[in-house]
Amino acid sequence: MKCRKCGGAAALELRRHNAAFCSPHFLEFFRKQVAEAVHRHHMFTRDEQIMVAVSGGKDSLALWDVLIEDGYQTAGLYLDLGIFDYSKESKAKCQAFAASRGQTLHIERVAEAVGAPIPVVQQATRRPTCSACGLSKRYLMNRAALQHGYPVVATGHNLDDEAATLFGSVMHWQTDALPRQSPALASTHPKLVRRVKPLYRLSELETAAFAFLRGIDYIVEECPFAKGATSIAHKQVLDRLEEASPGSKHNFLFGFLEKARPAFEKIEHVELLECTSCGQVTTGAICAFCKLADLVKRRTTG
Amino acid sequence: MKCRKCGGAAALELRRHNAAFCSPHFLEFFRKQVAEAVHRHHMFTRDEQIMVAVSGGKDSLALWDVLIEDGYQTAGLYLDLGIFDYSKESKAKCQAFAASRGQTLHIERVAEAVGAPIPVVQQATRRPTCSACGLSKRYLMNRAALQHGYPVVATGHNLDDEAATLFGSVMHWQTDALPRQSPALASTHPKLVRRVKPLYRLSELETAAFAFLRGIDYIVEECPFAKGATSIAHKQVLDRLEEASPGSKHNFLFGFLEKARPAFEKIEHVELLECTSCGQVTTGAICAFCKLADLVKRRTTG
Repeated sequence: MKCRKCGGAAALELRRHNAAFCSPHFLEFFRKQVAEAVHRHHMFTRDEQIMVAVSGGKDSLALWDVLIEDGYQTAGLYLDLGIFDYSKESKAKCQAFAASRGQTLHIERVAEAVGAPIPVVQQATRRPTCSACGLSKRYLMNRAALQHGYPVVATGHNLDDEAATLFGSVMHWQTDALPRQSPALASTHPKLVRRVKPLYRLSELETAAFAFLRGIDYIVEECPFAKGATSIAHKQVLDRLEEASPGSKHNFLFGFLEKARPAFEKIEHVELLECTSCGQVTTGAICAFCKLADLVKRRTTG
Repeated sequence: MKCRKCGGAAALELRRHNAAFCSPHFLEFFRKQVAEAVHRHHMFTRDEQIMVAVSGGKDSLALWDVLIEDGYQTAGLYLDLGIFDYSKESKAKCQAFAASRGQTLHIERVAEAVGAPIPVVQQATRRPTCSACGLSKRYLMNRAALQHGYPVVATGHNLDDEAATLFGSVMHWQTDALPRQSPALASTHPKLVRRVKPLYRLSELETAAFAFLRGIDYIVEECPFAKGATSIAHKQVLDRLEEASPGSKHNFLFGFLEKARPAFEKIEHVELLECTSCGQVTTGAICAFCKLADLVKRRTTG
């Protein structure tokens, strides 16, 4: 296999693009895909301060690396979920990355905000762990960005993540979730910062290759609670379809964004209010995060 | 396991309904599901003549059996695809079934209409066999119903078929196909008869059990061209999801029909014309069937 750009020995084959690249040209390809995502969805400008939500994994650190190298003004946000050694190690990776690049890293402890670390939250809610954890992360990302004055939060969601989430929403036809699935969510309320996913055009394999080639030290282990998660089962389904027909994931996600999402946007109208307890944006009187924190408080002090 | 209705020994467990039935109560359950489908989608009345498209397989013969037993006025339509012994055997099953019930069976030869049997059509078109075959079947069903004066064609598509078709349309976001996916398609033009799928609430396993318990002699072999078809790969994906979470297929299909289909109906507007060659309904000047027949003629006589 030869590099599509220079004809040299290829380091990586990208079947869905029917292309192969040597290491330097793969890095160039990767950065161009991020630039294309930022440009196409007007994610942010060079004048803005971007908060990059980092987990210590390959995706979010690769994203931060690209944005720093490209000259964007960034800071990291690490959400400490309190998941035993997994959280300790992932925090250390983020701190080391930030220090090596001379970047600010904000740290928020979920235990402080919700009242208990995620493993205790899980036991208190008796619901799938990822549900309460995802809710807490989205809430704290937005709150931290508002507090520190960042107009936009960038997350490391890649093509595989986005396709798997879409797959889950589609299997249940969650018509409230479908219009929110987008590489860029605008601020629809003064207390909601923009949320963007500059890696949505790049697969998990590609972010792993980028992180490896860039020598990024990231946490390889998955979250211990992810085992058996529906999203992983959905990723496996999509992997099989991708294997049989390269480009399946891409077509599924991009086809949705281009052709189907507008149809769902039209049927979904929600009024945004401010939570009477914390003041953050919600569609009810009390936001889901405050309800979760209240439940955790009652069940852990009972 | 005990029958949900009578407490006797159950013959069949239906996990997605969290129920089990003895043989007589399963047959009753099956017929009620068909009646519910007919009622809910106003498929046809007892005053109408229904053309039942039969392939000789379990689904379409089970459907015909239910409709006859329920006192509907029916006749069969067998489309002879000219697929070697498979077609010979399946035609014989349909003829025997019709004769044993004293019913009329109309037979249309695809070779006569398209100019060649399906195996030759496949070679001529160099496209997936199922594509030209499906097109021909839909065309000939409608034409035969019009010619013989039936206002409605009923097909044996079951829940698994419908879920797999929907899955394929969704993976590619075929926004033209999505609004047409329905248990009942109205006549939107004087030359289009209604098309209905009274088995859409019943799984493949359930139609097989019904056919077995009713002693229906059907062709067990799949069409020899179906091997490797995308629809089969999609059925396998759905089978795995169903295995992990009973009811997945049902929720996927029914959720679409209830929540998502209306969104797609709105964005799709097509003008129906009459084919300048054959007079049947089309969206262009020449219908897809006439184009196919023309292609077959040119490639087989060249």
